[in-house]
Amino acid sequence: MLNESIIEHRRGVGGGVAFIVCGPSGAGKNSVIERVMEALPGLSYSVSFTTRPRRSDEVDGRDYHFITDEQFNDLVENDEVVEHVTYLGHQYGTSRAQIKSVFADGKDVILNIDVNGAKKLMERGLSDFSIVYIFLTPSSLEILGTRLRERGTETEKQMEARLIVAAEEMKSMPLFDYLVINDDLNTAVAELQSIVVSERCRVISRK
Amino acid sequence: MLNESIIEHRRGVGGGVAFIVCGPSGAGKNSVIERVMEALPGLSYSVSFTTRPRRSDEVDGRDYHFITDEQFNDLVENDEVVEHVTYLGHQYGTSRAQIKSVFADGKDVILNIDVNGAKKLMERGLSDFSIVYIFLTPSSLEILGTRLRERGTETEKQMEARLIVAAEEMKSMPLFDYLVINDDLNTAVAELQSIVVSERCRVISRK
Repeated sequence: MLNESIIEHRRGVGGGVAFIVCGPSGAGKNSVIERVMEALPGLSYSVSFTTRPRRSDEVDGRDYHFITDEQFNDLVENDEVVEHVTYLGHQYGTSRAQIKSVFADGKDVILNIDVNGAKKLMERGLSDFSIVYIFLTPSSLEILGTRLRERGTETEKQMEARLIVAAEEMKSMPLFDYLVINDDLNTAVAELQSIVVSERCRVISRK
Repeated sequence: MLNESIIEHRRGVGGGVAFIVCGPSGAGKNSVIERVMEALPGLSYSVSFTTRPRRSDEVDGRDYHFITDEQFNDLVENDEVVEHVTYLGHQYGTSRAQIKSVFADGKDVILNIDVNGAKKLMERGLSDFSIVYIFLTPSSLEILGTRLRERGTETEKQMEARLIVAAEEMKSMPLFDYLVINDDLNTAVAELQSIVVSERCRVISRK
């Protein structure tokens, strides 16, 4: 039996998996994703489109592609986003072309998507690749509130709005495959990393 | 929302999972399992029964419970093993009482089971707990043969018999959930560890 024939029984790196990380605003999704990408090879981050204004600590093309409402509507019309949602008055969407180009590179894609966007994907699915749904959150809304306050980029009213949305988003947790608790960054990084590694060890049924 | 209500959405440690590690003789299952148990809390190893003679490097009660054919037949008759197989003329079986006591301790159980024993469990299932099936093997039979030779505990004829059985066992790989490649011990340990951690992050549906 050749080496290839054994290793080919598992998904491996670049096995066409999209790791979707969801969770309330302030959960620390970006920090965890960043650290996991540093630790593991073969992961590429797909940057979402948004019509919301850029925060002072954000970089266009790294955190989001910041575009206008008109540009966004064009993308939707031309079916260039796999999902899109409106969150607190702004639009967010995931580029189809970007996901395809990651897979063409032989890597896995990791995405930071809104909970409602993920729910839309769960309903529709995507024929070309497998999706692993991961919910990432601190263990309580109290911790979440503290983090949003520490970030200090928003008014008290905006934060309250985010916490109300967060409480609502928590209800969707049972729909996800995995739940990563981010009370401690190192633990959360180790958990998300384990999910990626183990999904790559999954046995695939031959076609 | 209380802390408990979020964390309770995932399986966690001691969520009633049996991690079954299978693979050909000489694959290094015991070494990998040992290292993972050192690294992760809440894992307990279930020692199998066997009627095969003890090897010089083995300890009764640690590697196996070495028992007579008569004792083994009594266990089977009293339904005290969850699965049992005959391999190269000797009997092997997994204690039901031991698994139950691990779960009663709030831990997960990890088992080293013969491939055919695992296949029997797949067919029958076990009502009281979830089973995660892991196949562990080097990436080729050549590497396996080298390892068996290095162990030097058997005759050339016994090793040939093991390699014939191994080639047969490889055919069952597609039935397993995960495939861990043990060409490098550290990599294999990281993979098995990731599987345990990620399975503990699995979202459970509330009843």
